[in-house]
Parts: sequence; structure tokens; C-alpha cells
Amino acid sequence: MTVAIVGAGPGDPGLVTVRALELVRASEILVYDRLVSLDLVSQAVGATRIARESLSQEEVNDLLVHHGKQGRRVVRLKGGDPFIFGRGAEEVAALAAAGVEYEVVPGLSTLTAIPGLAGIPLTARGVAAQLTVLTGTSGDGRELDYERLAGTPGTLVVFMGLARLETIADNLILAGRSVDEPAAVISRLSLPGVERRIGTLGTIAGDARGLASPAVVVIGDVVAHASQLQTVIELAGGANA
Amino acid sequence: MTVAIVGAGPGDPGLVTVRALELVRASEILVYDRLVSLDLVSQAVGATRIARESLSQEEVNDLLVHHGKQGRRVVRLKGGDPFIFGRGAEEVAALAAAGVEYEVVPGLSTLTAIPGLAGIPLTARGVAAQLTVLTGTSGDGRELDYERLAGTPGTLVVFMGLARLETIADNLILAGRSVDEPAAVISRLSLPGVERRIGTLGTIAGDARGLASPAVVVIGDVVAHASQLQTVIELAGGANA
Repeated sequence: MTVAIVGAGPGDPGLVTVRALELVRASEILVYDRLVSLDLVSQAVGATRIARESLSQEEVNDLLVHHGKQGRRVVRLKGGDPFIFGRGAEEVAALAAAGVEYEVVPGLSTLTAIPGLAGIPLTARGVAAQLTVLTGTSGDGRELDYERLAGTPGTLVVFMGLARLETIADNLILAGRSVDEPAAVISRLSLPGVERRIGTLGTIAGDARGLASPAVVVIGDVVAHASQLQTVIELAGGANA
Repeated sequence: MTVAIVGAGPGDPGLVTVRALELVRASEILVYDRLVSLDLVSQAVGATRIARESLSQEEVNDLLVHHGKQGRRVVRLKGGDPFIFGRGAEEVAALAAAGVEYEVVPGLSTLTAIPGLAGIPLTARGVAAQLTVLTGTSGDGRELDYERLAGTPGTLVVFMGLARLETIADNLILAGRSVDEPAAVISRLSLPGVERRIGTLGTIAGDARGLASPAVVVIGDVVAHASQLQTVIELAGGANA
């Protein structure tokens, strides 16, 4: 295996997989995202480390293909999971088209980190049996289909929705969603210093004022189950803080 | 921290988190699910190991509370992620109600393992910008809302849907979904011996005949992006097989 597309998880060094850590430590070329913990990056002691933010997606693809063809141990380290809104599929397609061998190592998505780090279960028996995940800004710039979303049962998780939170909340309410529906914003879930605000669809845009991106928005009754969870997490001394 | 609710990931020992492994190794009481890899369970060398399948959910809760109150290092090891259709929220509620301190350690959900282990990206730029996750059998026995699901854009992932796959596919087609829409079933994703079948909504129930549970169903255009991914995964010598 030469190139590994690796999910780094939500940022906590304990939440990286055994396989990811092994690959990072053995890497010769490490291309890492802005949201990846520097603790993890520093484990690549023998590698040339390249920050992805200075490069276009095309340059990243070319870099992976170039070093992969030379048989170097290349790790493409991405925040969360590479295939949930992570553009991992594009990198894999470039490698496949060039005939470069690769391995995919899934990571803990920011999605699955929500319960542990922010105390909100995404599904719960009798509360939410369906989970819908989307981004606040569609890739092609189209507006979200609020009529349809308003009628969607279960939990709604919006990635990259903080900047447009007021628009999203207002439109869901206009389309029939209750102003009192529980909603939460979790800021910097993928980094140390996670911050959580809880309110309703009617209040959440105001509640979230001042929070920093990246942030995840959770809408639905599961949010009402959050307080109890969080209280105990705090009581427990911040292992998840 | 006394009780830890820990996600074991999809079964591959490399896809467990560093923190989960650490907690399992240090545990005194380990309560584990049927779908958790025995490799991982065997790491709990000093623990009393209790298979969950012999117990009711209430008995599990009582066990966690009982040993937690005595200050023992208890690990509740669950397949995948404990909070995505995992009933982790119920166990946490029982601990919280009893005033027992606990920690939540998210695991790789079967959901996030799909791209790496079965070669299907769940979202892809220009292909699917929304992800809907549900179970084939609702907790309260109600039928799925096929009219609504048929109109839902993006990728549909159905957990525990294998036994009812023909009903689900037929009803989605009746409700307007194309008979030619790509669909896949991935069997035993959480165990060694993952098997994948790819077809369309019209053929998938037949294609999946003979597969064993647990299985995950993926419906949507992302499935058409699977072949290329899988080819290269196989070429790569089965690190993800």
C-alpha cells in the first residue's frame, strides 16, 4: 500500500484509530487538513509534512498521485471521516485513475462525536428513529429544500451551517416546523475547546451568536435529552470536555 | 471515571480508537455486544467478561449501575458507535439517574465504515449532498413512510433492513423511486468477511439473497461510484477486505 486516505477523527488524540496512528507514524509524506490535531501531525516524526490549506484540491490530488507512483508511504490525513462531506471520494478517484494503490481508513466523523463530546444522542428509542445529515451550503450554491426538510422526521444535523443559521431556522419555521423545537449548535467540535449552545428553532440563531466555525447544528427532540447527559459529563471531570 | 460507554467500531481491530483500547485493557468488568470482535474482548485480560446477549437491556443497565457504584472500572463495549441506533442513550440515562459517573467514547459507526470497507462514498460532490439514515424496522413497529422517503434527495442508508429488503425496495418504487436507481447491500460489515452486492432498486432484493445479517443497505447514485473504488481496494491486496 502506498497512499492511505485516513480519517483523523474529531481532534481528540484518544479518538484516532489504532490503524490511523500506525500509518501516520510510519509515513514519509503527510498531507494534513487544517482541522487535524497538531498532536497527531507531530507523530509523523520522519515525514515531510504538508499543510493542505496552501493547496488547491487539484494540487492535493497531483501530490498524492506523484508520491504514490514513487512508492512512498503517503498519508492523506483528513479531519473527521474522509467520506462524510470530506471530498475523500475525489482523491480516491484521482488515485484510481492514475493506477496508484491506496487504502481507505475511515475516521470518527464529527457526526459520531456529537454524543460523546456534546452530550447529544443522535437517535434514541422512542425519540428519533431517523437521522438526516446535510450541509448548510449546498456544493452547487442552490438553496436548501426547506419544504421537504420541514416535513422530515427525526434528527436533522447540519454541517457548515453556522454562518447561515438564521436563514435556515427562519425558513424551517416558515415551512411549518415548530418555533419551540429543540436545537443546538456545537462549535469547534473537531478541536479542543468545544462549546455548546442549546435553544429552540426560534432562539438558536441568537443563542449561537459569537460561536466560531467549524460548527454543527442539531435540530430535533434528541436535543432535549442533552442536558442530563452533559451534566454528568461535567460532573465526571471533563474527560470529554 | 468508573463506567465507560465505549464504541468498538465495525470489528476490524485497527478501527478501534486509541482511547477505547486503553479502557478495555484497564477494565475490571467488561460487558460486550455480540458484534464486537473477540480480538478486542480478549484485550481485557484482567476483567470479568460478560456477554450482553444473555441479558435484557434492564439487566445491562442494572449491572452497569451496580458495579459503577462500587467504583469498579466498568466498560460497556458496543459494536459501531453507541449512539447511532445503539441504545447507548438508555444506558447513559440509567447511569445518570443513579448518579454514577461515566464517560462516553464514540466509536466508528458502521455508517462511517461503509466507504472504507465496502468502497461506497456516502456523500460525493455533485452526486449526493444529503444523507438519510434509518432502520428498516421502526422501534415501535410502524411502517416506514415510503412516500416521504421516495422524495428524499441524496443517499439513503438503511440499518437492519435485510430481512425486509424486498418490501422496502418495492414500496420505494411504488412511491415513485426509479427501478434503475443504484442500490447495494453490505453484509457483515461489522465482522470479518464483509460481502457486498450491487444492483438497482428493482434487482437488489434478489441480488442480496443468501446474505447474512447484520447488513446495511445503501440506496442512491453514490453506489454507482462504488465499482472503481472497490476495484482498487481489491488491487491493493485486501488491507480493507
